[in-house]
Amino acid sequence: MASEQRLAPRDFIPEPALRRLPWYLAYVTLLRKRDVEYVSSTQISRDLNVDASQIAKDLSFLNIKGKTRIGYEVASLEAELEDFLGFRRSHNALIVGVGSLGGALIQDSGLEQFGLNIVAGFDINPDLIGRTLCGIPVFDVRELDLRRRQFAADIGIITVPVEHAQSVADKFVAAGVKALWNFTPFRIRVSDDIVVQNTSIYAHLAVMYNRLNMNLSSGRQ
Amino acid sequence: MASEQRLAPRDFIPEPALRRLPWYLAYVTLLRKRDVEYVSSTQISRDLNVDASQIAKDLSFLNIKGKTRIGYEVASLEAELEDFLGFRRSHNALIVGVGSLGGALIQDSGLEQFGLNIVAGFDINPDLIGRTLCGIPVFDVRELDLRRRQFAADIGIITVPVEHAQSVADKFVAAGVKALWNFTPFRIRVSDDIVVQNTSIYAHLAVMYNRLNMNLSSGRQ
Repeated sequence: MASEQRLAPRDFIPEPALRRLPWYLAYVTLLRKRDVEYVSSTQISRDLNVDASQIAKDLSFLNIKGKTRIGYEVASLEAELEDFLGFRRSHNALIVGVGSLGGALIQDSGLEQFGLNIVAGFDINPDLIGRTLCGIPVFDVRELDLRRRQFAADIGIITVPVEHAQSVADKFVAAGVKALWNFTPFRIRVSDDIVVQNTSIYAHLAVMYNRLNMNLSSGRQ
Repeated sequence: MASEQRLAPRDFIPEPALRRLPWYLAYVTLLRKRDVEYVSSTQISRDLNVDASQIAKDLSFLNIKGKTRIGYEVASLEAELEDFLGFRRSHNALIVGVGSLGGALIQDSGLEQFGLNIVAGFDINPDLIGRTLCGIPVFDVRELDLRRRQFAADIGIITVPVEHAQSVADKFVAAGVKALWNFTPFRIRVSDDIVVQNTSIYAHLAVMYNRLNMNLSSGRQ
């Protein structure tokens, strides 16, 4: 692994930096829409409240150089960020659990703009199986293996009730999926070669409630 | 502030601990459904892959004590976690931007189970204004101030295109909202007394793509 890391240094960006890049992307997209041509890291720093040296360091992972006193070309920076973040490529994904949240994700056309192409849904509910949702077919979860190969999907999205999270993760891995996007608050366990991204929006709710109560009870209304 | 902190120590849980509590909740809910009566931190540790001493420390913020050699009573732990996390209280929220993601959140009945009660949506699109979505009325965004007071909502959810994120945040704050749940990748800026929770699911996508490419290119298929 060590030698491979040296061969592909661009890929080995630390997660905190990686998570800041979409902020910069959102910001430069905004600038481009306003016909701004150049932006300096100082200006990004001021508008996004991130340290300027941090920004320069984060952007050093990209194939782009800023010009002295002028900064980065907005259109190039936007394209480079989109490319680096993988938003310009299409990634086929399957989703198990076409209930409330799963159905919502299938409907969210925003995901497609960010390169996520949900090609099929799966459920155990006979009322859903055989139907389509925004043009996406819903299959019996028993067809996961077959359909995974058919659609050549590398990503599996888990939006099932918490008690089924682990078994769905296992089914996805057995079917050959390489990355799992887990929307349940359950900590699924898979082998190290499978990428797991946990997105528990309910955990974010808990943090927000707690901080809100803290503020309200300290009387800073 | 310092003296108030001492008066309400239970509230001042560090964010990393706070974010782990929903994992424990999901897990004990699962155990309760399986009619398990007691659980030890060792068992939680084994199943969730979190250090046992970490678990004990996290749970020390709650009003619950485990019994020696038996552990925590599952039903009490579940109730205490739900209560502490604010999931048992109803929090009124308004949402600006009833497009793809906003509509999806309104439809996600899961949020209500976690105490989030979306009472009204707002948009600038005349085709949406005046309609209802899953029983939730959609108003003109110019009515934000009036409706905020009418519904006594403390939470504002932002699901607008990135270029409108800051102006919507400003409108929410002016209308009297105390917490903002920002689903855009834009880093909104508000005064310190307003809670901001950023949930950019697209940033999670970027992390997943990057790690997936790393694994695929290192040949660990």
